Amino acid sequence: MENTDFMENDEQAIRQVVASWLEASQKNDLETVLGLMTDDVVFMVPGVEPFGKEAFIAHSEQMKDVLMKAESDIKEIKVLGGWAWMRSFLKVKVATPDGNTSTRSGYILTILRKNEAGGWAIARDANLLMPEKDS
Amino acid sequence: MENTDFMENDEQAIRQVVASWLEASQKNDLETVLGLMTDDVVFMVPGVEPFGKEAFIAHSEQMKDVLMKAESDIKEIKVLGGWAWMRSFLKVKVATPDGNTSTRSGYILTILRKNEAGGWAIARDANLLMPEKDS
Repeated sequence: MENTDFMENDEQAIRQVVASWLEASQKNDLETVLGLMTDDVVFMVPGVEPFGKEAFIAHSEQMKDVLMKAESDIKEIKVLGGWAWMRSFLKVKVATPDGNTSTRSGYILTILRKNEAGGWAIARDANLLMPEKDS
Repeated sequence: MENTDFMENDEQAIRQVVASWLEASQKNDLETVLGLMTDDVVFMVPGVEPFGKEAFIAHSEQMKDVLMKAESDIKEIKVLGGWAWMRSFLKVKVATPDGNTSTRSGYILTILRKNEAGGWAIARDANLLMPEKDS
């Protein structure tokens, strides 16, 4: 209730989804991240079959000891009633417990859907992140 | 006028955009392909900066001696009034004049927009195609 100012328009609400997603991911707060995707979400990344919520959970559990820092730059958002699409650039730095670090970056095309309560969630996500050459 | 049956609904019209795109690409019919994208189209592929219509034209001219055969499998289309999104799988085999062949495949997330005449065109396209391991 306190944060209704964030929801004064859908575009702002979608920016908040991205901010909450990154913040929760960095904290390994999987429950919050799962609440920001639809139950039928489909994630697409190069070179593997598209995957949904269960595979996302399994992957997150494997990554729980990895430190992650991510920055998103939203390039455009188009709201279409109860749906929206967004194009963004994401840079993710990860550090494994053994001290290895790496950086991936690239563009993402995302489809979002508004739920009955007026909240936005990620429904489809095509993630083109690749390892940075100097990382 | 003869083909208005194809346009009996937007989803069918979008399937026709894909079919026309692939057929024209295989024939090196660049003019037809350009008519199936919006002027502000943004193409995203892994590892390079997003590019628009002019870079698409330059790339197509470089590829004009390459034989191409492509097959698309449309997984889902969601029409949202004057916009739509589509998820598809694409497999592209190319043969260069020196006889080299290669195959790339992967998923694509596409945003389409309807123009004033009722025709659909590609507006944003995130293409996750990667070389097939056995090609």
